[in-house]
Order: sequence, then structure tokens, then C-alpha cells
Amino acid sequence: MPRSPLDRGRLGAGDRAALARAISIVENDEPGARELLRSLFPATGRGYRIGVTGPPGAGKSTITNRLAQYFRGRDQTVGIIAVDPTSPFSGGALLGDRVRMADVETDPGVFIRSMASRGSLGGLSRKAVEAADVLDAAGKDIILMETVGVGQSELDIAGAADTTVVVLVPESGDSIQAMKAGLMEIADFFVMNKSDRAGAEQAMTAIQMILHFRAGAAWNPTVVSSVASTGEGIPAIAGLIDAHRAHLESTGGLARRRRAMLERRVGELIDESLRGGFWTPERRAMMEGRMDAVMEHRASPYEVAEDLIVHFQSR
Amino acid sequence: MPRSPLDRGRLGAGDRAALARAISIVENDEPGARELLRSLFPATGRGYRIGVTGPPGAGKSTITNRLAQYFRGRDQTVGIIAVDPTSPFSGGALLGDRVRMADVETDPGVFIRSMASRGSLGGLSRKAVEAADVLDAAGKDIILMETVGVGQSELDIAGAADTTVVVLVPESGDSIQAMKAGLMEIADFFVMNKSDRAGAEQAMTAIQMILHFRAGAAWNPTVVSSVASTGEGIPAIAGLIDAHRAHLESTGGLARRRRAMLERRVGELIDESLRGGFWTPERRAMMEGRMDAVMEHRASPYEVAEDLIVHFQSR
Repeated sequence: MPRSPLDRGRLGAGDRAALARAISIVENDEPGARELLRSLFPATGRGYRIGVTGPPGAGKSTITNRLAQYFRGRDQTVGIIAVDPTSPFSGGALLGDRVRMADVETDPGVFIRSMASRGSLGGLSRKAVEAADVLDAAGKDIILMETVGVGQSELDIAGAADTTVVVLVPESGDSIQAMKAGLMEIADFFVMNKSDRAGAEQAMTAIQMILHFRAGAAWNPTVVSSVASTGEGIPAIAGLIDAHRAHLESTGGLARRRRAMLERRVGELIDESLRGGFWTPERRAMMEGRMDAVMEHRASPYEVAEDLIVHFQSR
Repeated sequence: MPRSPLDRGRLGAGDRAALARAISIVENDEPGARELLRSLFPATGRGYRIGVTGPPGAGKSTITNRLAQYFRGRDQTVGIIAVDPTSPFSGGALLGDRVRMADVETDPGVFIRSMASRGSLGGLSRKAVEAADVLDAAGKDIILMETVGVGQSELDIAGAADTTVVVLVPESGDSIQAMKAGLMEIADFFVMNKSDRAGAEQAMTAIQMILHFRAGAAWNPTVVSSVASTGEGIPAIAGLIDAHRAHLESTGGLARRRRAMLERRVGELIDESLRGGFWTPERRAMMEGRMDAVMEHRASPYEVAEDLIVHFQSR
């Protein structure tokens, strides 16, 4: 791969510096990012991607860490992408790698990367998936993708996994809030974390009742309890991941999921390309020249958009 | 307006059936939606838009309702757009209009609409803003836009308001979670709701300390406490909204915000139009014909996207 900005051999050999550099190139959209991803693509598809999502404070990071340790105990290598929408104060992921690393930093078989959103215009989910591709090409057996599970971009990231785990806590209303947030749609199973807290059993029952209405599909989501801070429930979570993976592999569901994901990816790349081709300096100036009229309601955004499209089509 | 599918006169006169119908046309992208919005656009810009956002369970709906009552007490008319990501079980907003309406349903000066996301492909924020346009054109003085405040689409909706209020609760970790979720960036001020709960004062202090680091701008966000269930703090929230509005109006900030919003709108309309022009049945078939090769990693999504773009450009 002489034209790749990185030595793919080093990446494949698990070189941490090469891996960190490759993810930075992708995250920052540096020159060569596209060529890098293209050169890595043939080496992807072997790693298994697990999305860990749920409301803020549910314990997603702890569960992700514990799962990483568990998979390491089976001698699987692990990559983690933690998506942390950014604060304006830190300019990066707030808690970030430092807190997270405490448990696993000494393990060369785990690679962790926090990604920040920096108010990105929808590019977040693409970059997170591309970073997962880098980890996959670097030979990680398991790729954990952790995101806060409320909001479309975040659900898109979790939905781009092979198995998606939704983490909840027993606080009243949490299960109904989960439904409101669209988490039910993407969950392959649920974890009721902090299950030593009051109300855990009722919350489990509530979710089971809701899931009961959905039963009858090839795979019926279930709910398992955990106390991630002590490690309780982690083997059960890993067991459900394994079971779901086996189900997908035996039914052809894995191929169908991945195909749909790759089709979405093509669509996103085309969106970007179209946008890049459209917004020449000339057309940007044309739009800005019309904005006074729009502000005074003499022209509508609809007219301005249509006029620009006509200009684009007649180029 | 003979070509508009709705009688704009009836809409302007506050006809509830006409208003409900117009929002449905927009929400469902029915034929004529674009023409309707275009015909209404000259009548927009008078209503003041307030975003109410925050984590699930913070009490956003209660605050929104109470604010609506408060503004009604000043004889202002009110429209509410509540964005509720959909559950697959209900097929619509889960709690929806019924629960919410209890307080205000008898008031003809308040119009409430719950919008569901139905797993939309990023169209949610556009439709919510368009629904606000309809309310604006119908003469509502105040338009409240309520969304769960975690996730990019949801932040986009809140960010499309003139004043954005972020609602938090005293639960430990909430303030740092708010920063992680990007809420700090869009907040014009904070409400610490359920401030009768334990930990409220510490949480207020934590936010104030964080805000202190940001002080020095033309408008410095602050934090106010409330117990929305009893109405405590609602006048203070309304007072801060008024103060922020006066600030924006006196500094030209309102025009700048609205201009940026309208530019984003033009960009979204162009995205949609480009996408619509690109995905002909022929090109969709071309993509599908390549997906086997992608699944076998003989071709990458990058190559497929580029080939389709070349085909588009050579049309």
C-alpha cells in the first residue's frame, strides 16, 4: 500500500501509535483520510461491533470497560470508540481517556479512543463508524461503540453495530423514557444496571411487559440485570452478546445488517460529495447576497434554494 | 392565495382546524407542503421562539405548560411544538397531546402539537421548525419548542429558537452530563427544576461555577431554580426569557441568529433537492448491483460512491 499515509502492516500488527494516528486522520478529516479508509476496507469485516447505549448516567462507560476486560479474559483483542459530545470548555471529550483508562490502560490488547462531536453537522456517526473500521482493520476482535442513547446521530452510531445493548437504570419513568427516545427500536437486549437500587425489579418487569408485546420475531429482546461497578452481571451480558451473534450468524441476519449499513454508508458519501460539488464560492456568495431579502421576508428560503439549484443544474 | 391548499386567511384568524391541518401537511410531507410553507413565509418572523430542552425526566413538559399559562396571563397567544421520538408500539407520540392538554385544553389561545420522529432520516428538526413557521404565520405571539436535549437533531431544534432554555434536575452528575451532551453550548440560561429535591443547591453552585468560566460575553447565561409542578419559579423563567429577548433585540443578536437559522434552512433544502435529483431508480439499481462486491470486500463503499457520482456528473 505505498500510497496509504500509514503503514498498513504496522496497523495490522497492532502498532498503537499507528492506530492512534489513523483514527486521528479519520476523526479530523485530514488529507488522505478517504484513501486510508479505502485502503483499509478490504481488511474490515472480521471484528464484531457492539453498540452500548442508553441515557446519560446509566453506567455505559463502566459496562463497556467491564465487557472489555471480560473479552480480554477470553483472549480477544478489544477496541473501544466512546462518543462524547463536546463541551465548549474542554474542547474535547470531558472525562475522556484518562478516567476511562484507569482500569485497562496497562493492557496492550485494549485500544480506547474518545471521540468528540464538536457540534459537527451530522458527521459524527460517520466518523465513529470509520474509526471502528480502523480498529477492525487493525485486527481487533471486538469493537465496542459507546454513545449516549438519545438523539438521532447517537442512535445512528448504536444502530451501526452488529449487536446493540441498551443500558437503563431503575429510576422511575426510565423505561417509558427509553421508548420515547427510540431506544426500543435498536435494542437487541436491555441491561438494567444499578440493579441494587430501589425499584429495579419493578423496572425490569415493566420492560419485560413491554417486550412481551413485541415477542414473536426471530430474535426476542430480553432484559438482564447488572451492577457494573462490582462486575455483577457482566458474564450474563457477554453471554447475551454471544447468543445474539450466533443467532445473526445462523440466520443470515448479520449479512443483512451489514449490507444495510454499507448501503447507508454509500448514501452518506454521496451526500457529502454532492454538497461539496454544490457549494462553490460562487454559489455561497449567491446565497449570501439573497439573505437580506430573506430576512425582510421579500424572498423565502424555498425560492433561494430553488434558484441555486437551477443555477447548479445549468452549469 | 388561491394556490395554497389552505385558506391563509383562516390560518391567520387562528382557525384551529386549519392550523392542525397545515401542520399535518408539513409533518407528513404531503403534496403541497412546500407551496404552503412558501406562501406562509412572508407572514412569519413576528412570533418569538423559545426552545425548552434538557435530559429525559427533567420536567420540560411541565415547564412548557406553565410558561404557556404564564404568557396567556399576559394575553399573548401561544403555540407549542413538542418533539417526542416515537415508540414502535404506539406509532405516535407516547404520552402525546392527551396528558399535556389537561392544563390548557380549554384555552383557545394555546395550540399544542406533538410531533413524532418515526425514525426519520434527519428530517425531524426541519419539520419541527416548519411547524413553528406555521404557528408563527398563524399569529402566535410565543412559540414554545420542546425537545429532549441530548442528540444532534434535538439540539438542532432547540438551537433553532430565539431563546433556548435548558432544564436540569439536581441529580448528581447531571451538570457534567449536561456539558457532555452539548447543552452548555446552546443554553441561553438554565433552569434547575425540582429544586426542592436534595442536592439542588450544590447542583446550582456547580453550574454557576462552570458558567463563571464563560463569563465576559455580551450575554452571560445564568441559572434559576423552579418547582414546575407547583408553578414556583415560572415568573423568574419568563423574566429571563424577556431579558434575553430584550438583549437580542437591542444588540442585533436576534437578526444574526435568525439569519444563521435561515441560511441553515437554505442548505437543508438544497441537500434534499440534490438527493432527490441523484437517487433515480437507475442509480439506485446501480448501487444495489454493486453491494455483493462490497459485502465480499472486493469493492469499497468509497469506490461505489465515486462511480455513482461520476455517472451523475456525466448525465
